[in-house]
Parts: sequence; C-alpha cells; structure tokens
Amino acid sequence: MSKQKKDTRPTPRLPRGLRDIEAAELRQQQAMLGKIREVYERYGFEPLETPAFEYTDALGKFLPDQDRPNEGVFSLQDEDEQWMSLRYDLTAPLARYVAQHFQFLPKPFRRYAVGSVFRNEKPGPGRFRQFTQFDADTVGAESVAADAEMCMLAADTLEALGIKRGDYVIKVSNRKILDGLREVVGLGGGEHDGKWLIAMRALDKLDRLGPAGVRELLGKGRKDESGDFTSGADLDNAAIETIMGVFEVSADDKLARLEKVKASAAGEAGIAELRLISDLVRSAGYGPERVLVDPSVVRGLEYYTGPVFEAELTFQVKDEKGNPVRFGSVGGGGRYDDLVARFTGQKVPATGFSIGVSRLQAALNALGKGRDAAPDGPVIVTVMEKERLADYQKMVQTLRAEGIRAELYLGNPKKFGKQLEYADKRNSPCVVIQGSDEQAAGQVTLKDLVEGAKAAAAIKDNKEWKEQRPAQVTVNAAALVSEVRKIIARHAS
Amino acid sequence: MSKQKKDTRPTPRLPRGLRDIEAAELRQQQAMLGKIREVYERYGFEPLETPAFEYTDALGKFLPDQDRPNEGVFSLQDEDEQWMSLRYDLTAPLARYVAQHFQFLPKPFRRYAVGSVFRNEKPGPGRFRQFTQFDADTVGAESVAADAEMCMLAADTLEALGIKRGDYVIKVSNRKILDGLREVVGLGGGEHDGKWLIAMRALDKLDRLGPAGVRELLGKGRKDESGDFTSGADLDNAAIETIMGVFEVSADDKLARLEKVKASAAGEAGIAELRLISDLVRSAGYGPERVLVDPSVVRGLEYYTGPVFEAELTFQVKDEKGNPVRFGSVGGGGRYDDLVARFTGQKVPATGFSIGVSRLQAALNALGKGRDAAPDGPVIVTVMEKERLADYQKMVQTLRAEGIRAELYLGNPKKFGKQLEYADKRNSPCVVIQGSDEQAAGQVTLKDLVEGAKAAAAIKDNKEWKEQRPAQVTVNAAALVSEVRKIIARHAS
Repeated sequence: MSKQKKDTRPTPRLPRGLRDIEAAELRQQQAMLGKIREVYERYGFEPLETPAFEYTDALGKFLPDQDRPNEGVFSLQDEDEQWMSLRYDLTAPLARYVAQHFQFLPKPFRRYAVGSVFRNEKPGPGRFRQFTQFDADTVGAESVAADAEMCMLAADTLEALGIKRGDYVIKVSNRKILDGLREVVGLGGGEHDGKWLIAMRALDKLDRLGPAGVRELLGKGRKDESGDFTSGADLDNAAIETIMGVFEVSADDKLARLEKVKASAAGEAGIAELRLISDLVRSAGYGPERVLVDPSVVRGLEYYTGPVFEAELTFQVKDEKGNPVRFGSVGGGGRYDDLVARFTGQKVPATGFSIGVSRLQAALNALGKGRDAAPDGPVIVTVMEKERLADYQKMVQTLRAEGIRAELYLGNPKKFGKQLEYADKRNSPCVVIQGSDEQAAGQVTLKDLVEGAKAAAAIKDNKEWKEQRPAQVTVNAAALVSEVRKIIARHAS
Repeated sequence: MSKQKKDTRPTPRLPRGLRDIEAAELRQQQAMLGKIREVYERYGFEPLETPAFEYTDALGKFLPDQDRPNEGVFSLQDEDEQWMSLRYDLTAPLARYVAQHFQFLPKPFRRYAVGSVFRNEKPGPGRFRQFTQFDADTVGAESVAADAEMCMLAADTLEALGIKRGDYVIKVSNRKILDGLREVVGLGGGEHDGKWLIAMRALDKLDRLGPAGVRELLGKGRKDESGDFTSGADLDNAAIETIMGVFEVSADDKLARLEKVKASAAGEAGIAELRLISDLVRSAGYGPERVLVDPSVVRGLEYYTGPVFEAELTFQVKDEKGNPVRFGSVGGGGRYDDLVARFTGQKVPATGFSIGVSRLQAALNALGKGRDAAPDGPVIVTVMEKERLADYQKMVQTLRAEGIRAELYLGNPKKFGKQLEYADKRNSPCVVIQGSDEQAAGQVTLKDLVEGAKAAAAIKDNKEWKEQRPAQVTVNAAALVSEVRKIIARHAS
C-alpha cells in the first residue's frame, strides 16, 4: 500500500468521554439491570422507552449544572432547521411524553425507563459523556406516599442487588426545608440569590471540608492548604449556626433540629411532609438504618419542588490516594411538580428516583458482587483435519442443540497449539479433538482445560506430560454430549 | 398564566421518524431480545457495547444507500472541531473496535451487540430514524465455515422465537457470483458501472415486477401502468438471459443454474464457497427448508465481499391494500473482508448477521406470538380512609415482599370509583379494600377484577349487583398474601 494511501487512513479511536463496554462488564450489567427491573416491576411500574433525541425546546433548561442552562447537551439541526438534542436524562423526555398523551394515561402514571443519556461536558475519571440511567417515576400523585415509596423502592433495589442492610442508607430531605431555611436566615429575596448559591456550594463540600471549613465559607471565606483564598457568603454567626444546625451530620432520624425552620411556612410544610414520609416507611417496616430523614441532603437539580432522596452506600473504599472514603451516592431523585406544566400550563405533581448504573456497578464490584454473572466460555471443537470441517461443525451443532455453549475453531487450523491458546483465552471448559485415529475408532478426545491447567502446574517436563496426558479422556463419539456435560458439571461444583 | 407565557410554551411532540415504545411492546421486545441473546451466546459469541457516537472518519462511507455516501447520518462537531456521527449500524463501530484492540483480542473474535442505530433519512411507514439491531459477527475467520455458521445461527434464532420450520428460510448467495456474472456478460470494467447499477436495481424489483418486467428493465426499458417510461440497462438478449438464468426464482437448492458464471474466476470461487457452505449446513442437519443456496439474493451494502445471507419469513400477511404478500426479510448479513483494513491496512476477514428487531417483532405479532410476555398488572391496594395511608402502604409492602406485584393507589382517593377505574386500566388481577368495618374485624376485602368483569356482564341492575357483590371475598387480614395468591393462580389457569 502506498505511503499516501496510508496517510489517509483514519485512526481507530473513540471521541473522548465515550467508552466501549466489554463482555464481562456487560454481562454483569445485564444481570444487574434484570434485578433492578424485577423490583421496579414489583412496585407496579411499567416500562417506557423514549428515543435518544427530543426537540431542544421540549427538553428545556433543566440541566444539572445550573450555571450553564442549555449548555452541556449535544444538539443538531434537523432538515427543517429545528434544533434537536440528545436527552441528558430520562425525566425531561418523560415530561414531554406525559404532556403529549396525558388524557390516555392511567392516573397516576407509573413508569420505569432504562437507557443511555448524553452530556456534552468535560469528561473526567469515571465521568463519561454517555452513560446509563435507570429511573422510576410516578406522575400525577400529589401524596407524599409516592415519595415514601421511592425511598422503599431504592432500599429494596439495593438489597436485591446483594448490598447488605447497613451498607447503604436512603436519605430523605425536602427542598422546602431549604426554602424555609433561606427565608429564616433572611436570604429570601431574589437579590440574595448570589449569597444563597455560595452558601449551598459551601454546604455541598461538607463531606470534604468538614463543619469548620464550611463555617468559614458561610462566613468571610476560607484559605485552603495551598494558600488560595475563597470568598464566603458573608453571613453573620447566627445565620451560620442556624444553617449548620440543619446540616451538621447527625446519626439520628429526628426532625428536632429543624425547629428553627418552622418559622417559615415553606419550612413547616416541608417538615410535615418529611414526618409523613417517615411514618409511612416506618409503618411498612423500614427503619432508619434503611430510610433516614436527613435534612443535610442537597440535590443539585433546580427542578425539585418537594422531597428529595439520595441513595448512599456507606461502606468504605480506598480513594485514588489509598485513603478510606465512603463509597457515596449511587442514585437519587425527588419531587418535581412543574415539569409537565412547562408544556400544558397544568401543574402535574410527579416524583422519581434515578440510579446511575455504572456507578452502582462499580459499587457492586467493590463489594465483590461482580463476577458471578459470567458464564463459562464455550466448548471449542478443534479442527485436526481441514477437509473434515463438516464433521466438526456437526459436533458443534449437536452440542448447541443440547443447550451447550460451543463453537468450531474458525481460525487457521494449521497450528494445533494456536487452537488450544484460543480455547484458553476464551475461558473454555474443554476442547473436543478428533484426529484420524479417533475417527476410525468412532471416538473423540475431550481435554478438560481447568483440570489440565492444574495438572500442568504439577508436571515437570514434556516427557512426563506426553506420558500422562493429564485431564484428557477418549470416549465413544456417541457419548460426546454426556461427557462434555460431566466436565462442565465438575467445574460448576 | 398570562397569554404571553402560554405562547412560549413548547408543544409536546417528537421529531419525525422517532417514536416512543410503550409497555406491552417493550416487554415483548425484552423477552425477544433475551431469546436471541441466548442463541447467540450458545454459539459462543460474546457481548460488546460501543457508544452511540463515533468519529465520522471512523465510520467511513459504508452507508446502506450507496448513492449518498456520508449522507444519511446524524453528525455534529465536537468542541475540538472534529466531526462525530451517531452510528448508523453496529458493524462500522465493530471494525473500529477491532482495529483499535486487535492485538489483545482472541482470534477469531466473535462478538454480538444489540443497540440503537440512527439514520438521518426520510422516515416513512414502519421506517424510523432510530431503531434497534441485533448483530453477531466473527472477525478474523477466513473459512466460509464462519458464514455457514451465520446461516445456522439465523435459523436457530428464528426457531427459538417460535417461528416454525417452513415459515422461514435463510437464503445464501455470494457477492462473487455477481462479480462473475458482471464479467461474463461483459460489464466488467469501471466504465460499465452505470449500466450494472441499473441492472442491479432492476433485479431488486424482481418480487414486485416479475421476470417479464425485469427483462424489460435489463433491456431497452419499461413503461409502467401510469405510462411513465423507465430507461433500461440496454443489455442484449444473451446477457439478459444469462442474468435471468441466475436470478429467476427457483425452489431448488442446486448450483446448476450458475454454470455460465464459472467462466469467470470470481464466479467460480463464489460457487465453490457456496458449495462448501451447503455441505457444512447439510452435514449439520440443516436442510434446504432451513438454509437455501439462492443466487438471487442481492444485499445492498457495498462492503460485502463474499457470501451474503437473507433471513426471509415466507408466511403470508396482508399488505396495506389487503392483498396477501410474503412477510419478507427480517435480517441479513454477509462477509466483509475490507472493513478493518480501512484503519490498519491489514486485511482482516469478517462475516456477520444482523436482525432488524422491530421488523422481527412485527412478524411475531403477525404470527400471534406476541403477547405471552405481558404479565398481569399489579394488585391495587385502595385507600378507603385517607388518614390510614400507613396501614395500606404496609399491606402493599407485605405483598411486594412476597414477590407479588402490588401498589398503593396514589391518586386522589376521594372517589372510590376512580380507584376501581384505575385498577381496570392497569389490568389488575384484584384490588384490596379495607374500610373501618373490615379494620375493626381484622379483615380485608378482595375484589377479583377478572371474575368481576365476567359476573358484571351477567348482572342486570345495580340492585342485583349490590346484593350479590360478585367476585368479592372478605377474609382475615392475616391471610392477605395467600388469598391474593389464590386469585392470581385462578387467572393463570
């Protein structure tokens, strides 16, 4: 091929922030999604799939990063010049769907959805531009019983995936508490938006900076280790202590620390809702070790209007530097009563819960729950004599017809060693061999690769190997299926 | 809300050519994909998921519509100005993946993939701009045994989905036969590309126009019913008969009609490959009623270099006009030996088979195989007394904990009739009712909605209804789970 031709060849690569998911991870994900689906179905949710694209105006400005409304999405113009965007979550398309079909839907409408969402943002470690979410939403239910249910759904889902009670907690708070708190500390008006934003950002860093650091950021400001100074929200001490009284970590489930927030009507309503949620889940047998009222939960999304939830994994893992950290959030959600009204003008109450699938999968791996979904590789029927392909293919089909995962070696069969290497790489339980001797005798040879590997480790030299031929058995060709089954069963036990 | 505000509200609608998939169809699809996956796994394929986007140069020009290379895709520029496109099939991303990771892959590399693909084309009835494909490909296998296997895989998959033998056929031909035929009729050089394209398009219409119409289009041209004239390929009679000798429909499995094509080396190679494929599948027990060598198969894609397959459903359905027609193709594929070489310069033989998921789903529906995947709706626990929500929620959780699909009625509970309407709409097996009387007596009432509907049809008036209260039973509250199970079991039998 000429030099010039070579230069025009594209490099095989992916755009940044995108990734391929390979067999082991994908199988595990498949099993995981199946278990989540089972719980969501048991809760009465029905599946719905919306397409990847929506009209940009239908998606709205409800991006997670509130500083950049309408940025962060992948958009392009359709032939008729209208802008379309790839969905950045599964909630905005649900709102569009509900607005479009409202009169025909059962009310409340309960749907679950799983699928890819897209963010046109700067990728980072573990932060991709396409990832999978698994959501459940109840639309048209005003009662916070719907929110209570989301918390129980989240708890049941995590347990169904094998996460032990005590290793997770579903935290519930209420956006109205924040609204009330804002009022109570005198930051109620729009002119205080900036200050309030600084305060919220400071509180978001509670885990990292601790109460002392956050107190500084709520006040004048804070100098970090590098000496850089960050200006604070400039609140007075009374306001800071009122806020910290709500946010400072506390293991209890009591609403007592919200006493001061009651001075605001919004705050009072928020507290009453939290109390009802707490009653409902407790009565259904979900204690605070599973569902915990915790006013320190701040969910970033602008569109929440009532209860908000966070599914947190509490067990420890090592961070990049090897320090132990709590695993943290794998999902969350909340009540959003205004999303459908964007289209129809009619307020439709709604609440939902969303799982970040790869984050949760990482958690399962950290807990060692990952790999049980991976099946054995296929049985490999080797090719000893090229002109007898049809015979070998027939063996393969015989095995498959009996439900056994099997394949013919389809590479160049010249070097037998390559065939065994391939079988090893594919994690095969055994290979099937039939040379002319075996054929003449109506026999096949089965080589157990798992036993073989163990035996090989114990054998000193080639001579001994040839004499012993460990983990290899020659049987009547008619017994192919039953003998292969025996080997597979041996590995399973 | 002010008039102006109303005017700025977006209309809830989807871009054309996109669609929502609702619960019943989605559940059926889920079950279908599970069965396909099982067969593909049994054949030794491993799952792989690539992202929706690829760099446009990595996708190449292998669009199905060969007249518009590089049109027909959704593309946008990344922040660094590079063009990215949404994948239009699953094969081009596979080629990129293989080129990128070649040295680490087992060879041959066998992967399956299922996912959305995108076409920026004019949508039509049943023709969408986003749809699902389910592919299996073997990369790095030169032997046509790999192609033979694709045919058997296709046959086994259709049967696993409940399509009876005789209702489908997997047709195999070979791109080399076309190349040979082209040579033999004297259209071998590039200067004849135009004529050959006209001839191929004519042959693609064989089903619709019949042999006489196609003969006209291979010759001078054809006047259709409306009187419009289409110019033909202007071939002489000998060439036309040579071509028709290959393409005219024939029920046999013989390669005899390809005798003339042997005059070309490419043609001869193609025939030999077809013969080997035929031997392999026959020896594995797949007769011509399952896998049929049929030289009339023309797969549109430019990139095929050898054997091509078409999975056809042979049973009849009604077309839009009510006329009986064969259901037709639900999938296909073939050998493409040049796709990976685009990146690496190194020729890597590959072959694959792709299922059009919604087309196949439509076929299953036409055969009445659709709905068995749909489970019953959830048991609905009604709300008789608003202040006792926690009790009702507890019943729901008790049912769910026993694996029973159940939910609390989350709408406004004021009108009890609405709750029953909701249960009906959700296809519930039964509703659970506990008013104050029942509560005092430690009881619950179960209303069997399936039996109830039958009984209601037989009842004349409200009075009779109230006296009989058909299909309703009041039991000890402790027996809730077992009584609900009884009702569900009754419906299942």
